[in-house]
Amino acid sequence: MRAAVFRKGSIVVDTLPDPKPVEGQVLVRTVACGICGSDLHAAKHTHQFVNLAQRAGNRWSMDADRDVVFGHEFCCEVVEYGPRTPPRLAPGTLVCSMPMTLAGETVQGIGYSNDIAGGFAQYMPLADRLVLAVPNGLPASSAALTEPIAVGWHAVQHARLTAEDVPLVVGCGPVGLAVIAGLAIRNIHPIIAADFSPTRRALALKMGADIVIDPAQNSPYETWLQAAKPEGYDGGRYAQLFGLSPKLRPAVIFECVGVPGVIQQIIEGAPPSARVVVVGVCMETDRFEPFFGIVKQLNVQFVLAYTPQEFAESLHHIAEGRVDVTPLITGTVGLEGVDNAFADLANPERHAKVLVDPWQ
Amino acid sequence: MRAAVFRKGSIVVDTLPDPKPVEGQVLVRTVACGICGSDLHAAKHTHQFVNLAQRAGNRWSMDADRDVVFGHEFCCEVVEYGPRTPPRLAPGTLVCSMPMTLAGETVQGIGYSNDIAGGFAQYMPLADRLVLAVPNGLPASSAALTEPIAVGWHAVQHARLTAEDVPLVVGCGPVGLAVIAGLAIRNIHPIIAADFSPTRRALALKMGADIVIDPAQNSPYETWLQAAKPEGYDGGRYAQLFGLSPKLRPAVIFECVGVPGVIQQIIEGAPPSARVVVVGVCMETDRFEPFFGIVKQLNVQFVLAYTPQEFAESLHHIAEGRVDVTPLITGTVGLEGVDNAFADLANPERHAKVLVDPWQ
Repeated sequence: MRAAVFRKGSIVVDTLPDPKPVEGQVLVRTVACGICGSDLHAAKHTHQFVNLAQRAGNRWSMDADRDVVFGHEFCCEVVEYGPRTPPRLAPGTLVCSMPMTLAGETVQGIGYSNDIAGGFAQYMPLADRLVLAVPNGLPASSAALTEPIAVGWHAVQHARLTAEDVPLVVGCGPVGLAVIAGLAIRNIHPIIAADFSPTRRALALKMGADIVIDPAQNSPYETWLQAAKPEGYDGGRYAQLFGLSPKLRPAVIFECVGVPGVIQQIIEGAPPSARVVVVGVCMETDRFEPFFGIVKQLNVQFVLAYTPQEFAESLHHIAEGRVDVTPLITGTVGLEGVDNAFADLANPERHAKVLVDPWQ
Repeated sequence: MRAAVFRKGSIVVDTLPDPKPVEGQVLVRTVACGICGSDLHAAKHTHQFVNLAQRAGNRWSMDADRDVVFGHEFCCEVVEYGPRTPPRLAPGTLVCSMPMTLAGETVQGIGYSNDIAGGFAQYMPLADRLVLAVPNGLPASSAALTEPIAVGWHAVQHARLTAEDVPLVVGCGPVGLAVIAGLAIRNIHPIIAADFSPTRRALALKMGADIVIDPAQNSPYETWLQAAKPEGYDGGRYAQLFGLSPKLRPAVIFECVGVPGVIQQIIEGAPPSARVVVVGVCMETDRFEPFFGIVKQLNVQFVLAYTPQEFAESLHHIAEGRVDVTPLITGTVGLEGVDNAFADLANPERHAKVLVDPWQ
């Protein structure tokens, strides 16, 4: 099969052996696979990515000296089942799956593995028990967004939201946009979102944000306060304790940037008792002043990925029209275009999500 | 009145004007007042303490060029009420109060104020509505521990504990010991506690810890895992997701040290899904790697102080024998001894809590 292979720091197109499904697996043909910010990070800062993964218990561990085929946001077609595996879905059925597979009782990640090629290859051996048929005739290009939408949905589910909460989404890249979509599905309003890029602010509005902010012009935290404070609110530090001021609505701030310094900005800007949900994946050492967290009694919930149930729910949210992902798709490339797309994705005015079609 | 005054970097004993209670206030005579780690920090790193307080919204703000009388962990006797204030408690009644007072609708902190002397002075003007009579004939020395015990009780209340949780208390200074006391009252076991000091580990056992660890000898996280893991536990990253391993009991880790580096140690050592409650007050810039929080989906709850209800509950926990604070009291000094006590408290083998008796 053909694949865009990450080999010693570069992405090259090459021919690899076709995977053979084992018992419990289904061989699929990749139809569309999104490029994720983590793919860009793994390609650009490979040794940091690998070392950190090893220190954190081998999650996403890979050997940087061996070939890797990235791609963990995919939609595929069923080709054939492994031996002694009842063919649950007909060949040609469009399917999604969480990016991992099972061989016996061994779980293997897909997307940063030296052993199993990810979605930037033409075929993958998925675990039958994780494979979900795409419902409602949803096109593969939209179904491929299940994985990034699930990241946002999981963050929203993990945020312990109530109807009183006023969310602030910091960063409107694919992660922030997925969080906004999740908040809109949960009907939590107003949704306030901040990004320096006008294109991404426009996308934020399309995904359901009510108020968007350019942090170069206005403070996201001041905008949040104006939207969330009740009449007669007195920001004095003890006034609420003694019932001398009505309470603020609770703040839930989603960190969707993932670069050093953002967590400190958030804890400095956050109102008291805010919950911060860290969805952006910062892979560097960061600096912060715990004192701001302490005096405001902030709660910081780090989240990652999704549960199988959240993944399935996300596919249904898309297929049943609760979220329209088509504005997010800003380009499609073949395997030969992956290398360039990695470079293009650095520009937020140009791209949100680029899909790879390994058969184009 | 006589007071131990923090004046241009030194603690000196001097005579100050007696405070005059205004309407709604009660003048009290300080009987015992504990020295807190924050007092030591404010004295040693005054400008950092003041600058950080100002940046964080003026909490504990003080002018370092003017006199300050520290002391916010006090037990007092009622002397007299302010004008137009019905005398609720008889003179001589032993009382405690949260360290703040009300003058009209203005709330003022006590302990780091240039305007109101704290408990290292002979008299204070407290807010009648915050003053609690000490029940059950509890001695003033024990009642003075209400404030630090309330810090631990608040942390425990804020930790959203369930009977399944296995707590780990990192640091057994007065804050960690108060957390252990709170956990023991809530009957959450086993309580695992870590400190480099043998004296503090012995105190931890007295306050209710079940297992104590010297981190120089054993990893607190490995000890926690041995205590918390069920039979057949497989630490593999996906094994639990697919039901291939029983689940760990949830970890709740209390950070009770408050110096840079400890939060990173905890997030590196913590098991997946742990909740970290930050009770120690780190006033410096800290470094950490968010990635460890992310891959483990940790929750970090910063806490500070207590609610009025938690403060009152803490006084009753002591007065009704649910926590014995007497082992924590390792010395009592008069005003002339405050300066030396600040130096002595640096040695964990020598002291836990030193009380100041401004009439000694």
